[in-house]
Amino acid sequence: MGLVAPLGESKKKGSARIEPLVALVLADMERVNALILSKAGSDVAMIPEVANHLISSGGKRLRPMLTLAAARMSGHHDDGHVKLAASVEFMHTATLLHDDVVDESELRRGKLAARMLWGNQASVLVGDFLLGQAFRMMVEVGSFDALDVLSAAATIIAEGEVMQLSAAKNMATTEDDYLAVIGAKTAALFAAAAEVGPIIAGRGRAERTAFRAYGDNLGLAFQLIDDALDYGGSSADLGKQVGDDFREGKITLPVILAYRRGSELERAFWQRALEKGEIVDGDLDRAIGYLRTHNAIEDTIERARQFGDLSRDALGIFPDSAYKAALLEVVDFCIERAY
Amino acid sequence: MGLVAPLGESKKKGSARIEPLVALVLADMERVNALILSKAGSDVAMIPEVANHLISSGGKRLRPMLTLAAARMSGHHDDGHVKLAASVEFMHTATLLHDDVVDESELRRGKLAARMLWGNQASVLVGDFLLGQAFRMMVEVGSFDALDVLSAAATIIAEGEVMQLSAAKNMATTEDDYLAVIGAKTAALFAAAAEVGPIIAGRGRAERTAFRAYGDNLGLAFQLIDDALDYGGSSADLGKQVGDDFREGKITLPVILAYRRGSELERAFWQRALEKGEIVDGDLDRAIGYLRTHNAIEDTIERARQFGDLSRDALGIFPDSAYKAALLEVVDFCIERAY
Repeated sequence: MGLVAPLGESKKKGSARIEPLVALVLADMERVNALILSKAGSDVAMIPEVANHLISSGGKRLRPMLTLAAARMSGHHDDGHVKLAASVEFMHTATLLHDDVVDESELRRGKLAARMLWGNQASVLVGDFLLGQAFRMMVEVGSFDALDVLSAAATIIAEGEVMQLSAAKNMATTEDDYLAVIGAKTAALFAAAAEVGPIIAGRGRAERTAFRAYGDNLGLAFQLIDDALDYGGSSADLGKQVGDDFREGKITLPVILAYRRGSELERAFWQRALEKGEIVDGDLDRAIGYLRTHNAIEDTIERARQFGDLSRDALGIFPDSAYKAALLEVVDFCIERAY
Repeated sequence: MGLVAPLGESKKKGSARIEPLVALVLADMERVNALILSKAGSDVAMIPEVANHLISSGGKRLRPMLTLAAARMSGHHDDGHVKLAASVEFMHTATLLHDDVVDESELRRGKLAARMLWGNQASVLVGDFLLGQAFRMMVEVGSFDALDVLSAAATIIAEGEVMQLSAAKNMATTEDDYLAVIGAKTAALFAAAAEVGPIIAGRGRAERTAFRAYGDNLGLAFQLIDDALDYGGSSADLGKQVGDDFREGKITLPVILAYRRGSELERAFWQRALEKGEIVDGDLDRAIGYLRTHNAIEDTIERARQFGDLSRDALGIFPDSAYKAALLEVVDFCIERAY
């Protein structure tokens, strides 16, 4: 598919390319996982039930791994990075719980979404609880710079979600609008997760900026691939249903490209289906057909590759190390999910 | 009604008894209000629209006033208390937005709830945004103790809301269960709002504990009166509809008392209406009738008075001052709302 793979890696499957990172942070990650379970605990029984349903559902925990690796690569030897990594995962989990309510999702990571089992109310409130616990852990770590970066991310993520809500069902959404949405709703947490690594290790501006750029561009690539997969892949691979974005009227890059490249007839189709929400049997297949005609999925993946290149380049200032190699390979992992 | 009023104050109406506090913090509160408007701003137009709908709806801003007064009374002369007060109000506003979604409320402060105008999605996400902004302001202030107290409150509030959700529609709920719920969902923020005053002023443990106890007991009294008003007062006074708690199956103290004091027939009524949610015309009047028969509203108000006494006593360690007098009078304000 035109990907330039490192020598000897060409046959490694996409999913294997996260393994070096997993292996490097294994011991730290066990402590993160124990902390996550403990901090999701509460005397109010419904809280650990709802939280653990999602926590135990097999997410990759990519974001906290970024924090751990960035901290270790920056020479951190204390244990603040474990709490920061758990905070990052809680921020992500809280976002997922709230997203499911906002999107009226039925599935999450291949399981029934928490809201289908415990109701929207529990998803909203347990999300709030986890966000509160995330901040408490950050406060315990005692770094104002880390608090600053992560609390800013919390605001930006919410801003991105509202932006997405405002852009939904609006075919006038441009590629720039779309990049602003995914930059806020997804890349901001990747960027913060990576940046707190050098922060907790006491590193300076150059290292912080480098890790931040790595996370930011990785997050953009990750979300672009997610949005491409929403019109490809299978429900089992994704942990959600193909066509969710289509049914919810989300205007993602594949659609933006196909709409702009399409005929008047095609544009009328997108407007009916996504703006008016009038979807009939066969419409998802018709949409996927138009995306193929106009190379919209392939070009979305190509954009992801470009951000992946920026992400890799951001780590260029660091000397070679096992951590650096693992973080570079995670870029491939994020992109090759699309194959 | 048996309230012991200060000399010369016996004819002052409940609503007037917040005025000394309002007057004392007027200048600070103008800065808080400006900060609230500014921090509710965003390039994403829907955020200030939704936030300002609630922010401009005439809440009393009691909680931030507690922070301002506690800080000033503790000798604080810098401006960190303004940011902390705005944070406290944002935490409260975020909770209201999420509560409306959880309770499926149609009204809030006498206006249509934000979710009725912009949808549940916007209420969830704008709540998240305001919570993020609250944390950013706290971080700017630079006090780990204040961050610790407020982030703990955020977690406890969410825990209280989940507790309330679990207890809903369950007539086995005891008075202790109920006090645990309102202690977490309401009193925790009152307590934190008051405690960060002496914290930002650099005061010690004794002053912190005193203000915390003042806020905690005030919050309990406040919520007890709120729950009494839900079966009394009028929609215009409350800014919500009488009987909301009844329709939502919330088990509040008036109901707990009437249920325990009632006949088998009455208990069957409460079970049908609140546990099964089978409500027919006339049921709210019937419920209010039972509450009157068993003196349940009056005794709920009596409990509020007792917590009010504890709240007043907590400030006993401080010398007399205009701030202290104003904070003592706020206790009466919270309780006399019921008349």
